[in-house]
Amino acid sequence: MKIGLAQLNYMIGDFNGNFEKMKSAIEKGIAANADLLLFSELSVCGYPPRDFLEFHHFINECENVIHKLAAVAGNKIAIIVGAPSKNPTKHGKDLYNSAYFIEDGKVKFLSHKALLPTYDVFDEYRYFEPNKEFNLVEFKGKKLAITVCEDIWDTGETNPLYRINPVAELAKLQPDILINLSASPFNYKQAAKRIDVVRRNAMQFNLPVFYCNCVGAQTELIFDGGSVVMNAKGRVFKELDYFQEEVFFCELEDVEQNEINHELDKNPTKLIHDALVCGVQNYFQKLGFKKAILGLSGGVDSALVLVLAVRALGKENVLSVLMPSQFSTSHSVDDSLRLLENLDSPHKIIPIKEVFDVYDKILQPHFENKPFDVTEENLQARIRGNYLMALSNKFGYILLNTTNKSEAAVGYGTLYGDMCGGLAVLADVYKTQIYEVCNYINKDEEIIPTHILTKAPSAELRPGQKDSDSLPDYDVLDKVLLEYIEHHQGPDEIEQLGFDEKLITRILRMVNRNEFKRHQTPPILRVSPKAFGSGRRLPIVGKYLES
Amino acid sequence: MKIGLAQLNYMIGDFNGNFEKMKSAIEKGIAANADLLLFSELSVCGYPPRDFLEFHHFINECENVIHKLAAVAGNKIAIIVGAPSKNPTKHGKDLYNSAYFIEDGKVKFLSHKALLPTYDVFDEYRYFEPNKEFNLVEFKGKKLAITVCEDIWDTGETNPLYRINPVAELAKLQPDILINLSASPFNYKQAAKRIDVVRRNAMQFNLPVFYCNCVGAQTELIFDGGSVVMNAKGRVFKELDYFQEEVFFCELEDVEQNEINHELDKNPTKLIHDALVCGVQNYFQKLGFKKAILGLSGGVDSALVLVLAVRALGKENVLSVLMPSQFSTSHSVDDSLRLLENLDSPHKIIPIKEVFDVYDKILQPHFENKPFDVTEENLQARIRGNYLMALSNKFGYILLNTTNKSEAAVGYGTLYGDMCGGLAVLADVYKTQIYEVCNYINKDEEIIPTHILTKAPSAELRPGQKDSDSLPDYDVLDKVLLEYIEHHQGPDEIEQLGFDEKLITRILRMVNRNEFKRHQTPPILRVSPKAFGSGRRLPIVGKYLES
Repeated sequence: MKIGLAQLNYMIGDFNGNFEKMKSAIEKGIAANADLLLFSELSVCGYPPRDFLEFHHFINECENVIHKLAAVAGNKIAIIVGAPSKNPTKHGKDLYNSAYFIEDGKVKFLSHKALLPTYDVFDEYRYFEPNKEFNLVEFKGKKLAITVCEDIWDTGETNPLYRINPVAELAKLQPDILINLSASPFNYKQAAKRIDVVRRNAMQFNLPVFYCNCVGAQTELIFDGGSVVMNAKGRVFKELDYFQEEVFFCELEDVEQNEINHELDKNPTKLIHDALVCGVQNYFQKLGFKKAILGLSGGVDSALVLVLAVRALGKENVLSVLMPSQFSTSHSVDDSLRLLENLDSPHKIIPIKEVFDVYDKILQPHFENKPFDVTEENLQARIRGNYLMALSNKFGYILLNTTNKSEAAVGYGTLYGDMCGGLAVLADVYKTQIYEVCNYINKDEEIIPTHILTKAPSAELRPGQKDSDSLPDYDVLDKVLLEYIEHHQGPDEIEQLGFDEKLITRILRMVNRNEFKRHQTPPILRVSPKAFGSGRRLPIVGKYLES
Repeated sequence: MKIGLAQLNYMIGDFNGNFEKMKSAIEKGIAANADLLLFSELSVCGYPPRDFLEFHHFINECENVIHKLAAVAGNKIAIIVGAPSKNPTKHGKDLYNSAYFIEDGKVKFLSHKALLPTYDVFDEYRYFEPNKEFNLVEFKGKKLAITVCEDIWDTGETNPLYRINPVAELAKLQPDILINLSASPFNYKQAAKRIDVVRRNAMQFNLPVFYCNCVGAQTELIFDGGSVVMNAKGRVFKELDYFQEEVFFCELEDVEQNEINHELDKNPTKLIHDALVCGVQNYFQKLGFKKAILGLSGGVDSALVLVLAVRALGKENVLSVLMPSQFSTSHSVDDSLRLLENLDSPHKIIPIKEVFDVYDKILQPHFENKPFDVTEENLQARIRGNYLMALSNKFGYILLNTTNKSEAAVGYGTLYGDMCGGLAVLADVYKTQIYEVCNYINKDEEIIPTHILTKAPSAELRPGQKDSDSLPDYDVLDKVLLEYIEHHQGPDEIEQLGFDEKLITRILRMVNRNEFKRHQTPPILRVSPKAFGSGRRLPIVGKYLES
């Protein structure tokens, strides 16, 4: 039996575009004489469709695509497609998250998702009723256990999130093949975890597994692909490329007999780099924009965003704007120019002093002789934001935001200033990780000038300012943030790890108090297991860990 | 039996503050010789605690408050308190959303929530395991059926969201009283719906109902209170005040014998007005801020925000800033000054032309001779945003955003300009509703000058501009928006209501395309059944209804 996996980059709600892609994959399958072709979870509408699922019209469009795909496949190939389906009973949510098994041009069987992830960035119980009934489908003499994403993730931990294991239920019916349609987003730990989960299922239930993921970015969520074909011994026959579309076919027999474990490299820094490039590229492509603009400060964050944007969009499609103030050091312009020269990418220099002076003259009479403070610092950042947005509006650029995760966490940034932008490229990457990605970029040649990587970070909003004047060292800060944000450790637990109590209190308060700023940031490309944004939901007004 | 309801305004994560409030209510109960006192859902930590629930430390703090409350109540009064509790089994989510029945200073019984709202602004299955087992608790010869919020809302509609009705399960055990601890947020339809739901339960199961809600705003969610005591005949013995804290006691016998239906007035316009005042007031109080700033344009939106802010914070605590440009009409300043005079509230006038001219001079060489367009319009709005944020930073004001729901829907506003602010007061109120609230404010005397209510809306960002140049009339626009946003009607369904197909396409596209702007707006006070913000989750990048 020849089975194919279509690892495709869908666009949410683009029913025609998604259909055309899937049709083309089916035609490849027919040409390759494949028996069965798998697509990913909710492929017809793209994942995550979010509240579009609450519109009948949207669900009807999904069903239309299913019928069109069935017609394309006809009696030449069987396909398994992810799409919502209507709950035929009156009780419970109106929809299931389903895998449609289509044979001879007809929907022969529906397998509904049983485990509905409702944590982090996932909201599936918002829309779907969980499946409670488990059946196999027979195809060309083989019994298929068809599952959807999370269904294979309950692999017998000590604290399972669910009360049922769908694969164990299906295994009782003695299937020959385990199939999984996924829409499993990237984080720097996910590729390794995914292989592990697939292997646990393969070996525990003694089944070959065909796992088909989607690929590409949906705003902040980046899907890395990495679809897997594995045999019952846990050996990877094929792991499809990360961040690339691919339609892959193989003979079941070859998979079963495979003795070699074919796995892709999973270096987290490389994966973060590639994910960010994919995220930027897809954001622009899918919105129909070509050109990006950013403020290049001479610091490491904007330097990295520039390199990533050039790799995603092409050097000629990224405009860097240098906006020195009276507090800018000479090296901030020099370092930026050297980087731009290395990249051969265009720039403008537009100083901010003259505008700042007029603001200052007009606002001073209203300031009641109060001294220079954060007001004037923010004003500089906001003038820069205005310049960038003006150029963006005039020429149709999208502004890339350069905030990093450490800053976003503690609120070290100016709302409507350096926090402007259509997409926050680095706000899920801690400052210490930013350097790692930069070093990865520089591994073969100096693309980012060394001085950018060695000088002390500074916002340059007052004379001689350093980040370390108002923040703990990033080395320590990032470790505490990781415990609080990624690991969900409270103040008592972090203290047990050996950090200073006062420092912990200070950092955790900064994080909690600055929720109001993060509420207004652009969407943040997610590369970690816990990113700011839809996966981390906290009150803006509250008093936890205060006083 | 004397039963009390403590309708209190909690603060999320403020364990000491919440404990003190609850302690004081218990002491009132003891003084009144009450037998039983009810609090609301998740009262010890405030609702919604969101992802704070994922921290062990937070859950332990909740448990501490429970123990302290038990000690205060001792053997003098029994209490029922809402708090999370740990799921003692290894399967399923780690927490229950529970009602703690505390008698003789001990936790005697836990009743877990069975129906976990996971739609709109609610995310309860993100945190909680649903209850599957139903028991009563006996107290002084009466059998109590204790439920939590949503548990009583499955009242036998044609399309129930859940597979079980907890009250029906409890009714099988023959209780004497139905108790419900709620945290049910306001919208302009909710108070009427709530009474209806309580009545359906009372009459269907022939039980008196004691329904205790919380009150006060938690950032964007406003809880209106309106706790209800109703007898088995469906007659309201008492509906507690909206938007007010109150501790109320009554004899069960009096409730049972009550023949008169005591209901509060439910005029939606008045309720919206009161909710917005409550929302502004609580946002400032809970953040520890006193003073607001806003830009007063001469239009109806900022006029209404000013009146609401003056009512919430006091006239001396609201600073209006008039920022005329070369395109401002003379009446925009005159109308604003008349309003300020009526309110006796302070203001500043700071024109923007000089700053605009410097930006223009500096940016022109970079604009490649392109004509005046939305760039220059946005720039004016952003200069105003900068002025307001500068004053806000210098003096510790919070900037109130004046965007209305119609504008927010179609993206008629400038990011980092008039979309700035700490709180969006009106962004869940359609333009046509804004006028209704203004007329309500003017019902006894002209507070908002009539000319503000009668002139054509204009952003005044270019000569002679009117909103109707680029938007459909608000009358029609708001109706289509209501169908799409509140009623979840798709293009085909809206067309069947008699609207023009092209107009529908235009409006729905504007709504979908401007999700990126709404992603960066301040939290929006929720007064409708479907507000922008956490209750409406849509992709930023997508193609639904485009093409």
